[in-house]
Amino acid sequence: MMSLMLDEIRQQPAVLERTLRQELKAVERLKKALANRKPRYILLAARGTSDNAALFGRYLLEITTGIPVSLAAPSIFTLYGATVDCRDALVVAISQSGESTDTNLVLERAKAQGAITVGITNEPESALAQMSEHVFLVRAGREKSVAATKTYTGQLLMLYLLAYALGAPIKIDDLRKLADLAAAALKLEPVVRQYAPRYRFMDHAVVVGRGLNYSNAFEFALKMMETCYVVAERFSSADFLHGPIAMVESAFPAFLFTPPGVTWTTMRQMADRLRAAGADVLLVTDRSNAEAAQLGIRTINIGARVGHRGSLPEEIFTPIPYIIPAQLFAEALAGEKGLNPDKPRMLSKVTQTL
Amino acid sequence: MMSLMLDEIRQQPAVLERTLRQELKAVERLKKALANRKPRYILLAARGTSDNAALFGRYLLEITTGIPVSLAAPSIFTLYGATVDCRDALVVAISQSGESTDTNLVLERAKAQGAITVGITNEPESALAQMSEHVFLVRAGREKSVAATKTYTGQLLMLYLLAYALGAPIKIDDLRKLADLAAAALKLEPVVRQYAPRYRFMDHAVVVGRGLNYSNAFEFALKMMETCYVVAERFSSADFLHGPIAMVESAFPAFLFTPPGVTWTTMRQMADRLRAAGADVLLVTDRSNAEAAQLGIRTINIGARVGHRGSLPEEIFTPIPYIIPAQLFAEALAGEKGLNPDKPRMLSKVTQTL
Repeated sequence: MMSLMLDEIRQQPAVLERTLRQELKAVERLKKALANRKPRYILLAARGTSDNAALFGRYLLEITTGIPVSLAAPSIFTLYGATVDCRDALVVAISQSGESTDTNLVLERAKAQGAITVGITNEPESALAQMSEHVFLVRAGREKSVAATKTYTGQLLMLYLLAYALGAPIKIDDLRKLADLAAAALKLEPVVRQYAPRYRFMDHAVVVGRGLNYSNAFEFALKMMETCYVVAERFSSADFLHGPIAMVESAFPAFLFTPPGVTWTTMRQMADRLRAAGADVLLVTDRSNAEAAQLGIRTINIGARVGHRGSLPEEIFTPIPYIIPAQLFAEALAGEKGLNPDKPRMLSKVTQTL
Repeated sequence: MMSLMLDEIRQQPAVLERTLRQELKAVERLKKALANRKPRYILLAARGTSDNAALFGRYLLEITTGIPVSLAAPSIFTLYGATVDCRDALVVAISQSGESTDTNLVLERAKAQGAITVGITNEPESALAQMSEHVFLVRAGREKSVAATKTYTGQLLMLYLLAYALGAPIKIDDLRKLADLAAAALKLEPVVRQYAPRYRFMDHAVVVGRGLNYSNAFEFALKMMETCYVVAERFSSADFLHGPIAMVESAFPAFLFTPPGVTWTTMRQMADRLRAAGADVLLVTDRSNAEAAQLGIRTINIGARVGHRGSLPEEIFTPIPYIIPAQLFAEALAGEKGLNPDKPRMLSKVTQTL
């Protein structure tokens, strides 16, 4: 029987298409509201997979709008009861369920101070949807798998739309292509399934990404921790060099997101160093980075060209298609390990923390 | 022969005492400058161990001053060449060597925009010391060990002083006690050495901390990665519950920082859940959290009371004494594993990244 996780991974092109179509109005409304009220800074509040999406948002928003972004540390609000000055902030809470107690509290406190609030959620009736001034609904349909997949890419789409609303030079037409890129990435399923058995006995790993794909390193590692019980570390290539690389020994499994663009040079150097140390390296890349395929390293190569031409970074639209083979890999590996990816031990779908 | 790392761990009380004494003037100068020019937000830029110190600074500064803090993503400046609006920001670069190319570049760009700049470094002649408007010198003496220890706690002290300069209700007299607390923590060396052999074959682990001790989880994990080649994950207790806890199985090694104060309740729940899953749990705590010792879990118990009474959080002064047994543990475990903690493979003292 197909897992819920695999079923939901496959829904992603449809979710992206539907979400973009149905949410454009809400986006234009926010764009208008922001035109007269430019925020001084942006605070993103989230947990788990949604927090990985927020990490992408941090890079995307700073790169394309120049507005400083901070990822909230909810305990500062919830446990320490501190008042962080949010007067002229845009505060965005991201939560699949919309019922995450701590991130909702961050939004509530900021709203009381006069911040502009945006809630990104999959649940229109949730507390988050009700308390946010602006609501961006991920139109993913109910997410039944404990391991989030379609809501992650749905949240990434929402963050592109948020950047657009803040005046970033992102075109809605470019965002329409994301569903096709996701569909192209899904075609990798047979390739990914072929790789999985080789990793049957992997019990630890490192995932490295950088810039716009740094969040994908977190998300891929989280999927492997949740569904395969692999102790998966995640780093930017720069942070990895500042100490953790020491732990890499022969056959150490390493997964690298290597899109075209400004991160490629440092990621290639990372791949070379890892290979020199005898690590077992797998790259996720696409046709627009022809150099990656020539490195002679095991590669998951998205057939479509994902690179972008224009004033935006070349790899701007890679994060959604690049995470898809990683999701497929985690799902397939769970199967190889005899685990049910839909029932990770000790987890339930909605996690309440303070 | 004693390792350089152990020698430098033992120097920490003297470093803290000397740094506080010699840097008070620079701190008062900054306090005066900030009185007429309150920053709208604070950007902390660092890598490696210094970035772990910055993570502590994030919590400390938001909790005690209410000014929003963001940890810089240097690649946004260096690789993407984006201009993040730093006009009314206080930008703090933290670097042991003061020669970290990427964080120096963040500071330089922010300075050009009119930001107030502070450099926290161990090297008075460094590029960072020369380009910063205000310089806070960690008076640690040359740090010869690749694995940073005394500069980490020195940087934490500097961040308390920065909070003081920004008007936080921190008393200089309280900071004078930190050297004594560090000395009390160093007395744990024989206890820690007794524990180390038990972990001889540990190849992965998780370190959990929260709030003001979250950065210590990162720093302890980094020490174990660098010197013991242990694949050490690090999480806040909240983030750990949002997925990664699934990977915990019987005998999974877990290290928890459990001070008194507002984080204790959630950390105790975490300890209970980990124990129920059969994990091998070790707590770092002190005499002011009597409950921790009663849990019946293996404990490293700092003999002195570290808890604080007054308007500041109860555990405000725990991070420096709490990281010391963790440093001692990593150094001792490296020895048990037959490794030289002063010579981690693939690392050198100054790491240059862009």
